[in-house]
Amino acid sequence: MAMQDKDKNNDKQTGQSQNMTEQECAAWLLQRDNLLLITHRRPDGDTLGSAAALAGALRGIGKTVFVIKNPETTPRYMPIIEKFHAPEDFTPDYIIAVDTATRDLFPDAAKAYEKIDLAIDHHPSNTHYAENTRCEPERASCGEVVFSLLTQLGGEKIITPETATALYIAVSTDTGCFSYENTDSNAFHTAARLTALGADAARLNRVLFRSKTRARAEIEGMLYSDMRFPCNGQAAVAVITLDMTTRAGADEDDMENIAALPASIEGVLVGVTVRELRDNRGSKVSVRSLPGVDSNKICARFGGGGHAAAAGFTSKLSVNELVPQVISVLDELLGVTAP
Amino acid sequence: MAMQDKDKNNDKQTGQSQNMTEQECAAWLLQRDNLLLITHRRPDGDTLGSAAALAGALRGIGKTVFVIKNPETTPRYMPIIEKFHAPEDFTPDYIIAVDTATRDLFPDAAKAYEKIDLAIDHHPSNTHYAENTRCEPERASCGEVVFSLLTQLGGEKIITPETATALYIAVSTDTGCFSYENTDSNAFHTAARLTALGADAARLNRVLFRSKTRARAEIEGMLYSDMRFPCNGQAAVAVITLDMTTRAGADEDDMENIAALPASIEGVLVGVTVRELRDNRGSKVSVRSLPGVDSNKICARFGGGGHAAAAGFTSKLSVNELVPQVISVLDELLGVTAP
Repeated sequence: MAMQDKDKNNDKQTGQSQNMTEQECAAWLLQRDNLLLITHRRPDGDTLGSAAALAGALRGIGKTVFVIKNPETTPRYMPIIEKFHAPEDFTPDYIIAVDTATRDLFPDAAKAYEKIDLAIDHHPSNTHYAENTRCEPERASCGEVVFSLLTQLGGEKIITPETATALYIAVSTDTGCFSYENTDSNAFHTAARLTALGADAARLNRVLFRSKTRARAEIEGMLYSDMRFPCNGQAAVAVITLDMTTRAGADEDDMENIAALPASIEGVLVGVTVRELRDNRGSKVSVRSLPGVDSNKICARFGGGGHAAAAGFTSKLSVNELVPQVISVLDELLGVTAP
Repeated sequence: MAMQDKDKNNDKQTGQSQNMTEQECAAWLLQRDNLLLITHRRPDGDTLGSAAALAGALRGIGKTVFVIKNPETTPRYMPIIEKFHAPEDFTPDYIIAVDTATRDLFPDAAKAYEKIDLAIDHHPSNTHYAENTRCEPERASCGEVVFSLLTQLGGEKIITPETATALYIAVSTDTGCFSYENTDSNAFHTAARLTALGADAARLNRVLFRSKTRARAEIEGMLYSDMRFPCNGQAAVAVITLDMTTRAGADEDDMENIAALPASIEGVLVGVTVRELRDNRGSKVSVRSLPGVDSNKICARFGGGGHAAAAGFTSKLSVNELVPQVISVLDELLGVTAP
């Protein structure tokens, strides 16, 4: 035990806090009040749903909890989060980051907080920047971590239908409606409990996954119509120009996860999406690949990086200049001789 | 009890067998051998997955079980079912229909069997044509009925990874990868258990839901690019010409469920897909609508019909002749004044 304590102190000094057990984390939360939750930049359903659920459930047991206003929150998720937004004059005693792997991912408003008391997360890449960390890297979503933590803390009775809805949004969006590679027994189990506790899966699925905006449909139409299939069809390259988004009237909400489309074509091992940036700032490239092709390696050639299955980079080159270079690297790395 | 027995006999005479409890059905199966399973016409993942799982698990406890060859089985599902196909010379003692609501849905090879001993189903419309029926109409898939029945019969230990895979295919396809309206806590719970028992959800989802053929992507591209939105955007009309399918190299497999796309656009209440028929035979129209718009009523105007949410008709008119007429009817029925 002494050894463990010593390690813990050492870890703190190097910014490497030990991982709390679920029981420790529940006890930590029960003993504290006046909490401010931080969500990550470009907030998705998982960070916002997890924060809303945590705030709602902790308020339900009498605590004062707010969520920092995240200016990049899209209209789609505003209804679940805005009631928890912190007023200007709120002075928290404890800061908790949710679904946020590193400090770099903090929205600007959160950067003033030097000491983060707790990070609740599921990213294997969590840097343990917080004083305390509850990270379950084997979970598909932070929503699952929060669900399990809340039931440990107060039993399923503290999960209201509203909290269940927020957590369902978290789990379902991070698993792509239970279709992504990360979908596992625990994701299904959590969804089963949340649905039993009042999350209306039918309605939420319709809104989140089974409908697309006209602008999105138009963008997909243009993207599929012009998609290129180099490397004997093992690669797919899609281009999204500013003119295309303007013609479709598409905003960032409409573009969510669009980089997944090229790699979802049968026979394609690696999908590349090249987007034109505003003000002649060049191009932004997203690469997605199946096991066997390393997205990270492809992007490293252009000074970018990421993971084996998903990586990216930006370039000062225009879309038209960049695409042939990308195809040439794909040809080389996929072992196909360029014509 | 006597009263119940009398009812049961009466019901049998009118073809209305009583619903068995799960326990009764499990006992019935345990006491019998030499079973032939029947799947329905145009077999989907639910009927084939349920039959394969039932056959596999019952073989696992020593019974002789085969599944009737269903000539419409698509290559996608052949790997899970073909090892159970009945040889020509198999003479069954009992016939069991799986996921099949009426006799009309039997494939031709099954029509010779006048007496069906058991029907295992989840369709509310099951006509109780069998001597015994185990139907759970509240379940999203027959796979859930079979999973629960098998665990009642022999515990989870009789669900091998192969059987779990067949059942996962059944549950996931009938719920559209857990996105359709029917997705509920039991569907998620069953998926959680099946995944824990060895169904590889990540791989199955990739094959079944996350990939589309190049031809399908091209067809979707053309369809979205040319989609019309009459009635102030409350309707969406898509046209699929023979030229489009030829250019995309699309076959019927590529067109599966394509009629669902127009109605999946945000704000659209009714989606219409008009397909050109071969040999100048005119057009085939599919209508899909959200609650509040009656697809059946729209199609009735053109001599067709169906249900409130999905209906269709064929017309001798060409696509170009028909589309304005369809839009005019939509304008009228949706209460929008035609320009």
